[in-house]
Amino acid sequence: MVYKKISLIGRSEESFDDAVDDAIDRAQETLDNVYWVEVDELGVELKSVENREYQAEVTVAFELEEPQ
Amino acid sequence: MVYKKISLIGRSEESFDDAVDDAIDRAQETLDNVYWVEVDELGVELKSVENREYQAEVTVAFELEEPQ
Amino acid sequence: MVYKKISLIGRSEESFDDAVDDAIDRAQETLDNVYWVEVDELGVELKSVENREYQAEVTVAFELEEPQ
Amino acid sequence: MVYKKISLIGRSEESFDDAVDDAIDRAQETLDNVYWVEVDELGVELKSVENREYQAEVTVAFELEEPQ
Amino acid sequence: MVYKKISLIGRSEESFDDAVDDAIDRAQETLDNVYWVEVDELGVELKSVENREYQAEVTVAFELEEPQ
Amino acid sequence: MVYKKISLIGRSEESFDDAVDDAIDRAQETLDNVYWVEVDELGVELKSVENREYQAEVTVAFELEEPQ
Amino acid sequence: MVYKKISLIGRSEESFDDAVDDAIDRAQETLDNVYWVEVDELGVELKSVENREYQAEVTVAFELEEPQ
Amino acid sequence: MVYKKISLIGRSEESFDDAVDDAIDRAQETLDNVYWVEVDELGVELKSVENREYQAEVTVAFELEEPQ
Amino acid sequence: MVYKKISLIGRSEESFDDAVDDAIDRAQETLDNVYWVEVDELGVELKSVENREYQAEVTVAFELEEPQ
Amino acid sequence: MVYKKISLIGRSEESFDDAVDDAIDRAQETLDNVYWVEVDELGVELKSVENREYQAEVTVAFELEEPQ
Amino acid sequence: MVYKKISLIGRSEESFDDAVDDAIDRAQETLDNVYWVEVDELGVELKSVENREYQAEVTVAFELEEPQ
Amino acid sequence: MVYKKISLIGRSEESFDDAVDDAIDRAQETLDNVYWVEVDELGVELKSVENREYQAEVTVAFELEEPQ
Repeated sequence: MVYKKISLIGRSEESFDDAVDDAIDRAQETLDNVYWVEVDELGVELKSVENREYQAEVTVAFELEEPQ
Repeated sequence: MVYKKISLIGRSEESFDDAVDDAIDRAQETLDNVYWVEVDELGVELKSVENREYQAEVTVAFELEEPQ
Repeated sequence: MVYKKISLIGRSEESFDDAVDDAIDRAQETLDNVYWVEVDELGVELKSVENREYQAEVTVAFELEEPQ
Repeated sequence: MVYKKISLIGRSEESFDDAVDDAIDRAQETLDNVYWVEVDELGVELKSVENREYQAEVTVAFELEEPQ
Repeated sequence: MVYKKISLIGRSEESFDDAVDDAIDRAQETLDNVYWVEVDELGVELKSVENREYQAEVTVAFELEEPQ
Repeated sequence: MVYKKISLIGRSEESFDDAVDDAIDRAQETLDNVYWVEVDELGVELKSVENREYQAEVTVAFELEEPQ
Repeated sequence: MVYKKISLIGRSEESFDDAVDDAIDRAQETLDNVYWVEVDELGVELKSVENREYQAEVTVAFELEEPQ
Repeated sequence: MVYKKISLIGRSEESFDDAVDDAIDRAQETLDNVYWVEVDELGVELKSVENREYQAEVTVAFELEEPQ
Repeated sequence: MVYKKISLIGRSEESFDDAVDDAIDRAQETLDNVYWVEVDELGVELKSVENREYQAEVTVAFELEEPQ
Repeated sequence: MVYKKISLIGRSEESFDDAVDDAIDRAQETLDNVYWVEVDELGVELKSVENREYQAEVTVAFELEEPQ
Repeated sequence: MVYKKISLIGRSEESFDDAVDDAIDRAQETLDNVYWVEVDELGVELKSVENREYQAEVTVAFELEEPQ
Repeated sequence: MVYKKISLIGRSEESFDDAVDDAIDRAQETLDNVYWVEVDELGVELKSVENREYQAEVTVAFELEEPQ
């Protein structure tokens, strides 16, 4: 069984932890077997949002199902 | 709303700018909310093509729709 | 025609070569035009498996079909 | 209009989030158009301070005003 | 007096801050002169644990005692 | 005589070459002895602008004047 | 429970796989809870040995026991 | 048949595309089987030249002929 | 006596070990004092060859002879 | 109190140590609270100078004063 | 026989060469078979010391003895 | 006129400065137009030599002559 990795950016007005959780939540809504997550970049968007938006770019690793 | 990033390689016989635009064009044909693009690598293929083929590997960031 | 790159992790109890082949096999089962593969990371999982599991994280490049 | 980037290190006795906010606060006290912030390094100073001092090295991007 | 650096991975079910503190706590239990800590990687383990386990790989720098 | 380096992001609706020139133009308006420029990142902003905005992050090296 | 990482270089006259296994064997002779191994560098020594010596620099991650 | 890679810096007063082509032209004048080129660095020389000199450092890959 | 380093890409239809050996064989056919080899990249070519072609980009270090 | 980092290139006809000291000297002439310096690059300029000019690119970290 | 690598930071009030030698001296006081040393980082501490303290972070490679 | 870059390792029993000069000396014995040198790695060989051998891996940039 092969793993696949995809890259997501989670966002939160509260904290970097929330931004990472935001990306994991989204991954788990549509993927069954998420194994682990690596944090690649942390940043804060200031201009295009009302307050500070904490962003976390993460790599999500999950097990691919067998093709049918 | 979470962003996703994918990696594309655009190609052009004219220039690196065209190769980047080629990848963006393709992304926008199938994705609704492309936000930004990062250029990761530039290269030129010489052997398997008639002339010089300019190539641009880019990362495309777009907003994921809510899962249904 | 634009290329796309995805990231897979192949696994084998035998060798790193087998782990890379495992990822390529999986890619070719569902993708028609795989052009080349880059090896990004090699590792060995020891705790959650019976013996040593050789793992190879690879980037797979394939030609995207035209959108319809 | 051109952006400029500078490098700051924020510090906090509480958390990394506070250390990042500390650097952003300082940037916004003297710069008008801060657009975004990238987190470059996280660290903890232990020896020269009473408790743990969380530090965040960040890059701050802001829009340069026109020269007069 | 020479410094030495070692690499630890702290773990927490609560937050990345706790995971970093976990590694620092462990270092200070057995080492006398810890000077500073650098955060190298942040990640989340999902499969082999009940909930999310936040992990922080850190480099710990401490002063070596004179050999006797 | 010491050199200093600063980081600027030039922007253009036309091309990456123009974006680099944009940053150099701005640097030369306020600095007397610009020696060379290194291109650090190329990107394209799509969402917050009408068309495609080509961006070039560059490092500008110039000779510092003697302090008085 | 905290993980620690150390860096070893395994060596073999046969293959890179053997060189990695050589390092893992040595780690498991003196460490109880080795969890995983990352391959950092592969190389071949030619001058100071009779034939080719395949070398693999690896990072070994193991669980630290509680201090007593 | 083995490939060899060499590193060249092309130069142009017009554009980065021309600077890359300048290096490829030079490589193809003396090498028969150039396969591909990777762009490693882009820069602009300002001080020692009259105008702006665009420079592109590239890696050129070509097939080595059999030794005789 | 100074060392020089060059970059070669060995190729094999069998394995990565063979691809590395292929590059070392070629280096030793024309160079007298090859000291060591570093593996820089591993990859697999799939499109332009009949089967899978394993490729290994290596840096070869050898002692330069005195100029005459 | 926030730290700021700037990038300088010191130069010397004698040695790399002198080139680093040259940059630190210049920083301390105009900045009050320089804390530490990181060496980023070492190089030697040969063409545009009479002899060899040793250059050291360094990052200088200093404490920002409170804005008034 | 397997090599192990550890990371030390040598310090000197004189020069970077002395700082590297300081780390090697310390390694050789307690380790029998030190083979080679790689310089990872050079820096200068200014605030917590009277004069300039040159620091060199090095990786020390030595041959592990057989476990008993 | 195109520049070419090659990689040399200079060696000295005295210092890193001497090791860099050693590589530059060798380059200038056989190349006419050496422009600049970048220092890539510093290391010390201990086992295969009587004392400490300081080594400096450098990249040498020189102007290629026109092909005839």
